[in-house]
Amino acid sequence: MFPKTLIKLKTVLRNIHDYGCIEELLGWDQQVMMPPKGMEARSRQLGLVAELAHKAMCSDELGDLLKQASEVVVEGSQEAAMVREAQRDRKIALRLPAPLVKKITEVTAEAHVHWVQARNKDDFDVFAPVLKEIVALKREQASALMREETKHPYDTLMDQYEPNATVEWMDPLVERAASVSQKVYEAVQGSKVSGPGIPAGSFDLDGQKVFCGKLLEWIGFDMEAGRLDASVHPFTCAFDPGDVRLTTRYSVDEPFMAFFSTLHEGGHGLYEQGLPKDYVGTPLAQALSLGLHESQSRFWENQIGRRFSFWQYAEPELKKIFPRLPAEVTPENLFFSVNRVEASFLRTESDEVTYNLHIALRYELEKALLTGELEVNDLEDEWNNGMEKLLGIRPKCPREGVLQDIHWSMGLFGYFGTYLLGNLYSAQWAQALENDLEDKSVSRGQENPASSSPPLSKLDQLIQEGDFLSIRDWLRRNIHIHGRRYSADELSRRLIGSLDSKYFESYIKKKYSRLYNIEV
Amino acid sequence: MFPKTLIKLKTVLRNIHDYGCIEELLGWDQQVMMPPKGMEARSRQLGLVAELAHKAMCSDELGDLLKQASEVVVEGSQEAAMVREAQRDRKIALRLPAPLVKKITEVTAEAHVHWVQARNKDDFDVFAPVLKEIVALKREQASALMREETKHPYDTLMDQYEPNATVEWMDPLVERAASVSQKVYEAVQGSKVSGPGIPAGSFDLDGQKVFCGKLLEWIGFDMEAGRLDASVHPFTCAFDPGDVRLTTRYSVDEPFMAFFSTLHEGGHGLYEQGLPKDYVGTPLAQALSLGLHESQSRFWENQIGRRFSFWQYAEPELKKIFPRLPAEVTPENLFFSVNRVEASFLRTESDEVTYNLHIALRYELEKALLTGELEVNDLEDEWNNGMEKLLGIRPKCPREGVLQDIHWSMGLFGYFGTYLLGNLYSAQWAQALENDLEDKSVSRGQENPASSSPPLSKLDQLIQEGDFLSIRDWLRRNIHIHGRRYSADELSRRLIGSLDSKYFESYIKKKYSRLYNIEV
Repeated sequence: MFPKTLIKLKTVLRNIHDYGCIEELLGWDQQVMMPPKGMEARSRQLGLVAELAHKAMCSDELGDLLKQASEVVVEGSQEAAMVREAQRDRKIALRLPAPLVKKITEVTAEAHVHWVQARNKDDFDVFAPVLKEIVALKREQASALMREETKHPYDTLMDQYEPNATVEWMDPLVERAASVSQKVYEAVQGSKVSGPGIPAGSFDLDGQKVFCGKLLEWIGFDMEAGRLDASVHPFTCAFDPGDVRLTTRYSVDEPFMAFFSTLHEGGHGLYEQGLPKDYVGTPLAQALSLGLHESQSRFWENQIGRRFSFWQYAEPELKKIFPRLPAEVTPENLFFSVNRVEASFLRTESDEVTYNLHIALRYELEKALLTGELEVNDLEDEWNNGMEKLLGIRPKCPREGVLQDIHWSMGLFGYFGTYLLGNLYSAQWAQALENDLEDKSVSRGQENPASSSPPLSKLDQLIQEGDFLSIRDWLRRNIHIHGRRYSADELSRRLIGSLDSKYFESYIKKKYSRLYNIEV
Repeated sequence: MFPKTLIKLKTVLRNIHDYGCIEELLGWDQQVMMPPKGMEARSRQLGLVAELAHKAMCSDELGDLLKQASEVVVEGSQEAAMVREAQRDRKIALRLPAPLVKKITEVTAEAHVHWVQARNKDDFDVFAPVLKEIVALKREQASALMREETKHPYDTLMDQYEPNATVEWMDPLVERAASVSQKVYEAVQGSKVSGPGIPAGSFDLDGQKVFCGKLLEWIGFDMEAGRLDASVHPFTCAFDPGDVRLTTRYSVDEPFMAFFSTLHEGGHGLYEQGLPKDYVGTPLAQALSLGLHESQSRFWENQIGRRFSFWQYAEPELKKIFPRLPAEVTPENLFFSVNRVEASFLRTESDEVTYNLHIALRYELEKALLTGELEVNDLEDEWNNGMEKLLGIRPKCPREGVLQDIHWSMGLFGYFGTYLLGNLYSAQWAQALENDLEDKSVSRGQENPASSSPPLSKLDQLIQEGDFLSIRDWLRRNIHIHGRRYSADELSRRLIGSLDSKYFESYIKKKYSRLYNIEV
């Protein structure tokens, strides 16, 4: 009876998973392909599929199967994790009334159009009415998800993206990350180093496409199981480990945008391609959390792609692909160019130092919106005040401010914080990988005692040689393949220890002290 | 109680319609976007949605609603037609066992890959095993759909694409169309006229794209409610009147391919955009039959696009877009070039004269496959023999022969005949439109008695002036807006009379007698 129950359970879960994939495809197509007049039918179809998924998740059949399965699985096994995670998802689904789920899906599908219109007209008032509706639905959702032990309504929303995350846990993390960011940012502003520039027009669009393809090849993204398209806002959609779609954004004026978006989305894509194949269609073969997901993208984008050794490896290839790039451009020039610190109105264009400040702003605003301390009518002002306080710049128009992100139009409240977690985790993984490599190299005696050059970390050695596949495989082995088997905290403890801002702090202080010749 | 029942009924039907749209999107994406490794999950998802649609169509809820509704609708009204057509669809669905529906969807989704591989290797044996499986499923389907009064199993399959079509009705139509095609073809072979050519390389790809956009603009295809992409095999997908997607194929060597594919798919697209909006989501707002659908595409492609007056209008525009087109090219040159008769191995590249022979071949082979008179193992030989008999040419490889069409891999048996019906109907509509225009012009006294030039038909006058929107609106008023309200025969009788090959015959004889200076 044991295997039969599990087979049946997997089938039911796989159908739910497939509804999710279909929803994802409907959404991807909406953003990348759909003509404007297709919107009405598309919203309806998204609502229909969300309802099916929700119904299936709440079905008694699934409840019974999970109960039976939980009694027979071996503790600590993958199956046990699968059952546990499915139970978690079902519990959340059971707390949400079906009409609310459908309503949220429909309203947020339509909200996209209003958000786009508001941006085109650069007028927050065009978006505000539908945003009010969304905030009201999110408050309703939070109150449906509240339990006796819940301390803050925002916890319920964060928990959907980052299991077990609470305001109590997040507040100090956000505070500390923001504070170190501000400290480094102030020091940079006082620095006299301005660094070299790369001449405008060095990177033609055709070459950018070629180089982005190269980047995905280097990091081992399987193009037979994915694609790379262009879109205004780069994103990743995964329908299956066999169909993972990335987008990037090409611009002659901001050439590095395309490269780093590709590395970033490529990092997300590798995670999806690396999930445990045998459990596809079950919660076990899903990403552990959005913070973990973001840690993969930020890892490739920043920990690898913004490293000096990366540009040592990339520079010759770059010169092959871009003949207009001046011959005297060095890896040092490139390294500085991709790490330049500059306050930006836009989160997506901000550097590693100021990025966390953008998140801190959204995190505080969302909490206030949810509790009712802040209303949508005052949001634009509060945004601008916050920017001024945190970064010393005030947006001149809503497109540069409150309208810049798509997330709220999609109903993604409780989501932004995971970007910050991603930054923290990615620094932690880089350290864990370095530790692993140093351990191995010592035990295998691979040191070269004859060399007199300054010691280069084993990780930098790998990168200089372009051996990105070893890095991917380390991530695959230690993170991707586990899916949702462990909690984020367990996974992190297996590698290096619970989440701790210190890795990010020391990383960012060290890097920018060197780049800007500052002391922090 | 009356309107409530109808509202409920429309909701249930709309969900079924939405499942169909989702299936359509999954299929479009598979052909245009999906990476190869996405296939496994995609087949599963297609099967899942097909099962949902089938279940909903067979549900007692729908049965009860239809019964209640049929008792209250007013005879002859749109509602009555909606109920009647939904009942028809449900009856067919009820005869098909759910596992068979799911199996067919899954097998045909996977078959695509085998068909592509077989074409790449130019080896029928790669495709034969899965085709055998499909033929077996189709035989099973036909026997599930058989009723006491059914005279030929093939009737059951044709009926799904062309309601009420039977072998008894089709056989003489196919025979007569093939016979007139052969007669004209033989006469053309004896003609000494070879006509002028257009220099190779006159039409660059960028210009082709611009001109295709122009064509869609001319005929009034709404680009806010659709798109035009490129694909190896042009096709149309409609998810909603607000989202109709066309593809075409660009080739420097065969420039007219892109133009006529665009007009062809544009004709399909106009039909979909013109369906009755108030009934979207019900069977009433669906295309009447595939023969009718094809009559729309062939109408724009051949009856309009391959007409002399069309090239009188298009020639100046063409010269603007393609500066390499020699100045001495005339509308006459273009008219001949786009109507050149040449036996081709490929159906999609064949001219109007020989096209029906390609259909006749497939029609006979399918009938024989279904009854078991022919087995898949002998199909390649029989195909080649048939081509030799009908067109006097023998394919040298399966890619030029039995592997050329995608249809069988998709399980579309009983479908090809509708292409021939489309040819016949399109000639019939052109005559009906001419009759209408002449009637109106007489009654409105628009003749110009002072003119001494040879009489030009009113239709040619419209086309010469580029007034394609009047033509589109005639189709919209007389065909599109009715959806499935009337049967094909009723619709045709309202316009000009029951389907009769004579319109096609006289059209093709007249046109090619003039072009090739022959008597037929």
